[in-house]
Amino acid sequence: MKTDVQIAQEAKMRPISEIADSLGITDDELELYGKYKAKVSLDVLSRLENKPDGKLILVTAINPTPAGEGKTTMNVGLSMGLNKIGKKTITALREPSLGPVFGVKGGAAGGGYAQVVPMEDINLHFTGDFHAITSAHNLLAALLDNHLQQGNALKIEPKKIVWRRVLDMNDRALRNIVIGLGGKPDGVVRQSGFDITVASEIMAILCLATSVSDLKDRLSRMVVAYNTDGEAVTAGQLNATGAMAMLLKDAIKPNLVQTIENTPAFIHGGPFANIAHGCNSVMATRIGLKLADYVVTEAGFGADLGAEKFFDIKSRFAGLNPNAVVIVATIRALKMNGGVPKTELAAENLQALEAGLANLERHIENVNKFGVPAVVAINKFPTDTEAEIQLLKEKCAARGVDVVLAEVFTKGGEGAVELAQKVVEVIETKPSNYAPLYDVHSSIEEKISTIAKEIYRADGVDFTAPAKKQIAELEKLGLDKMPICMAKTQYSFSDNEKLLGAPTGFRITVREVKVSAGAGFIVALTGSIMTMPGLPKVPAANGMDILESGEIVGLS
Amino acid sequence: MKTDVQIAQEAKMRPISEIADSLGITDDELELYGKYKAKVSLDVLSRLENKPDGKLILVTAINPTPAGEGKTTMNVGLSMGLNKIGKKTITALREPSLGPVFGVKGGAAGGGYAQVVPMEDINLHFTGDFHAITSAHNLLAALLDNHLQQGNALKIEPKKIVWRRVLDMNDRALRNIVIGLGGKPDGVVRQSGFDITVASEIMAILCLATSVSDLKDRLSRMVVAYNTDGEAVTAGQLNATGAMAMLLKDAIKPNLVQTIENTPAFIHGGPFANIAHGCNSVMATRIGLKLADYVVTEAGFGADLGAEKFFDIKSRFAGLNPNAVVIVATIRALKMNGGVPKTELAAENLQALEAGLANLERHIENVNKFGVPAVVAINKFPTDTEAEIQLLKEKCAARGVDVVLAEVFTKGGEGAVELAQKVVEVIETKPSNYAPLYDVHSSIEEKISTIAKEIYRADGVDFTAPAKKQIAELEKLGLDKMPICMAKTQYSFSDNEKLLGAPTGFRITVREVKVSAGAGFIVALTGSIMTMPGLPKVPAANGMDILESGEIVGLS
Repeated sequence: MKTDVQIAQEAKMRPISEIADSLGITDDELELYGKYKAKVSLDVLSRLENKPDGKLILVTAINPTPAGEGKTTMNVGLSMGLNKIGKKTITALREPSLGPVFGVKGGAAGGGYAQVVPMEDINLHFTGDFHAITSAHNLLAALLDNHLQQGNALKIEPKKIVWRRVLDMNDRALRNIVIGLGGKPDGVVRQSGFDITVASEIMAILCLATSVSDLKDRLSRMVVAYNTDGEAVTAGQLNATGAMAMLLKDAIKPNLVQTIENTPAFIHGGPFANIAHGCNSVMATRIGLKLADYVVTEAGFGADLGAEKFFDIKSRFAGLNPNAVVIVATIRALKMNGGVPKTELAAENLQALEAGLANLERHIENVNKFGVPAVVAINKFPTDTEAEIQLLKEKCAARGVDVVLAEVFTKGGEGAVELAQKVVEVIETKPSNYAPLYDVHSSIEEKISTIAKEIYRADGVDFTAPAKKQIAELEKLGLDKMPICMAKTQYSFSDNEKLLGAPTGFRITVREVKVSAGAGFIVALTGSIMTMPGLPKVPAANGMDILESGEIVGLS
Repeated sequence: MKTDVQIAQEAKMRPISEIADSLGITDDELELYGKYKAKVSLDVLSRLENKPDGKLILVTAINPTPAGEGKTTMNVGLSMGLNKIGKKTITALREPSLGPVFGVKGGAAGGGYAQVVPMEDINLHFTGDFHAITSAHNLLAALLDNHLQQGNALKIEPKKIVWRRVLDMNDRALRNIVIGLGGKPDGVVRQSGFDITVASEIMAILCLATSVSDLKDRLSRMVVAYNTDGEAVTAGQLNATGAMAMLLKDAIKPNLVQTIENTPAFIHGGPFANIAHGCNSVMATRIGLKLADYVVTEAGFGADLGAEKFFDIKSRFAGLNPNAVVIVATIRALKMNGGVPKTELAAENLQALEAGLANLERHIENVNKFGVPAVVAINKFPTDTEAEIQLLKEKCAARGVDVVLAEVFTKGGEGAVELAQKVVEVIETKPSNYAPLYDVHSSIEEKISTIAKEIYRADGVDFTAPAKKQIAELEKLGLDKMPICMAKTQYSFSDNEKLLGAPTGFRITVREVKVSAGAGFIVALTGSIMTMPGLPKVPAANGMDILESGEIVGLS
């Protein structure tokens, strides 16, 4: 089979102005970035204020395994399948981060015959959103260090500065650094570091903001440090809000591209799925719902993290009403969840499959707890045997859940027609009664416990002494009545990545609690979270090139 | 009078596709970035290979003073003036750096009624060129530190790494840092730092590259470190070339915008004018010469640095044939060069003006040494007196040099009609016999001495012991047969910024000599050069904002 980049380069793209036109976007609302990318003005929302919203479908997955589940690919494939059966559909995805492109991963814009294009541009600078976030984030850092240098009128305690710098690069050597060395004009010496841009709170804010003024309010509230009296110091107090918002003036507008079958695609925002909420932007989703009958969107990691945050953070803030959830799995990944090592996945193993199905079943139950009906979509692999498929179908049928096999990687939208029909049927016949899981006015401990017990099925939550102290401080500062953003391993329902399947009889340990006051959530960390990846022994960058013809090689 | 941003916002811009059309750029050669910015394909050059070039005019200046000379404003005004007298003209400028926008300076896209627009976009992210350079530069840094981490097969000596990181931000705290702290997975501990993006060698390369393959050759040759045997380690040896070139695939294409009078403007590249050559891109200049009858371009700082590098580096590499030089001065700045403090510039002072004219006269002589005829353009100020103007004209007439007063800041192109007529007359009547000042095959010392004696009028050059050692090393490595890029204070012909006017009886001290093997020049530093600016006590960022309407305030 052809490589992803070959398939992408052979795609017959339509001019993006035609795609926009088919959605009823006016010329004034469209800003072209070349022939195949455009930004869409937020004015669309006010123009279509009175138009009813389309249906919103979330694509999520079982706990990820090294076998791969293909969530983004399924998201793209389903939207193309819906178009094939005559439903006006938009796919709404996150933007890939530039850093990982040069590491292990290569690109991230779907795969095979279920990709978004122009794949090279989307994977490189795209329309510059992440660069704008990098600039805004680092401007705030420079203003903060300059404040220290120029007399520190706000009495910032240098050891309690929580605002680091960011680069969209996998660069381990920048994780822990000492800045401000040199002479007196060269800043104040202190320890700090860089995170990858997708980990910036500004990324989360961009994805949650509902207008330019909401963006500014959120930027202004960001806590960058604490002063010598223990009070929070915000970006607003550093007079940084307006300049940051100015840098983000175009980044806040959703990006319109297309799938290789010319389905419209909004690709906008890409917050980290652990220390942030891992969903594409609210503005892209909302504008999509005004322009199409169906919007298909995704959330990071498995449903225990991604779907939970989609419901409890994004949908709650944005007033969304999700109509259906598609849970993606593969038979290979289910067998891994059932204990089979990666090297033995090609062999039929009904026992392991049955064990792994417990993982899928728990995610189905969880999704139903939010009041939203679920469909299971299986990304079919050539190694899947008839007996395995039969077992899967029987088990799901016994639970009254719809399962559909899809072949989007090799067949594109054609491979998702049956899935599309099933999803439409579910939306038309099963009402959604979406509600978040917990009340934001509960205590931080209560909210975390609810998630741990209801979603992860833990027996309880242990808070370390530092975490307890941090919770007390946030309560004192009045920064506790917000949703929780859990940071936990994506590989297990528990906080131990080795416990696959559907573990029970475990407790969750919360080691650190911190606030993202601008994004509007409280981050609860259950382990050490890497916010600046490194490069591998042989980085993907080594194999990349651009030919004189403009053709790109090595981006997969 | 209105502010720059007000004037810019009131400009009646034409769609950039119309501007491109008027130049004969085809649809396929144009990539829109919104309605008023576009990138132009390098294919224009091959399509128009056999078309004769237009005339090339360099705008340079006397040694800059705090009084301001208005070189960019004159560049823009002259191009508009040429259009007013029926000459098809393109203005070709450097891109402003984002960092200084938030510091003291505000924007940099001309001023008053001689600006390029859309001013806000040009001053912010523009088309992302600088972000692409930042990414490529920092990718190379990450690959280098990863090489150390993964076993250091190239035997790089960590204390002899010369490749730092860059950000397009004024951030003094990043000048000197220690990276790689933490545990074993967190990189190798070493001292390093960040420069501002415009100081990146990749910026200089982007501006000198003549094709994608030339870009790759230059990137590959960049020296990033020395190994334990003292041999140069290059970007090519780190397998970084292809990935960097891929990141720069769009940045290498010139950006087309317009002046507020709709004159086409290429704004592309902005290398530092001290450690690099300070000129806009070769590709923009070359494409401009194919599309128009006149191209007006500028070089950084005064003529002793900017024009010298324009002739000895850019024109030499690119095979350009400059037809005329416009030397910009103001009566105020000439008086400062004659010893008047800034606070007393409003008062008539014929004696100081006469003393300061020596600076202008020497620049005129220097320009003639390159075989190119010169015209003096005076940016007229309300405080200039009749007697001062009369004196200036007499002195220049006595030397056979044309002087024209221009009022481009307040009157736009109309204020430069007389200047435009004079420049055309000079080009049509005085042949240009451009030749660089020295042979690149001379020794490094000889080349530096030639510049110091011929252009600066120094008695001689002293090389410090470290500089002598560095020169010997470069000769040993075979990296000495390249043009010299002088890094010297812009305020004086000498290396002492206090010696204004036309000093004599001084020597130049070269403290450090290093190679930019990719850019293709040897940098000779005559003092400490700041490659990462800081923010002032009250940064310009504090007063910036974007309103819900999208209107930007505080960018001047």
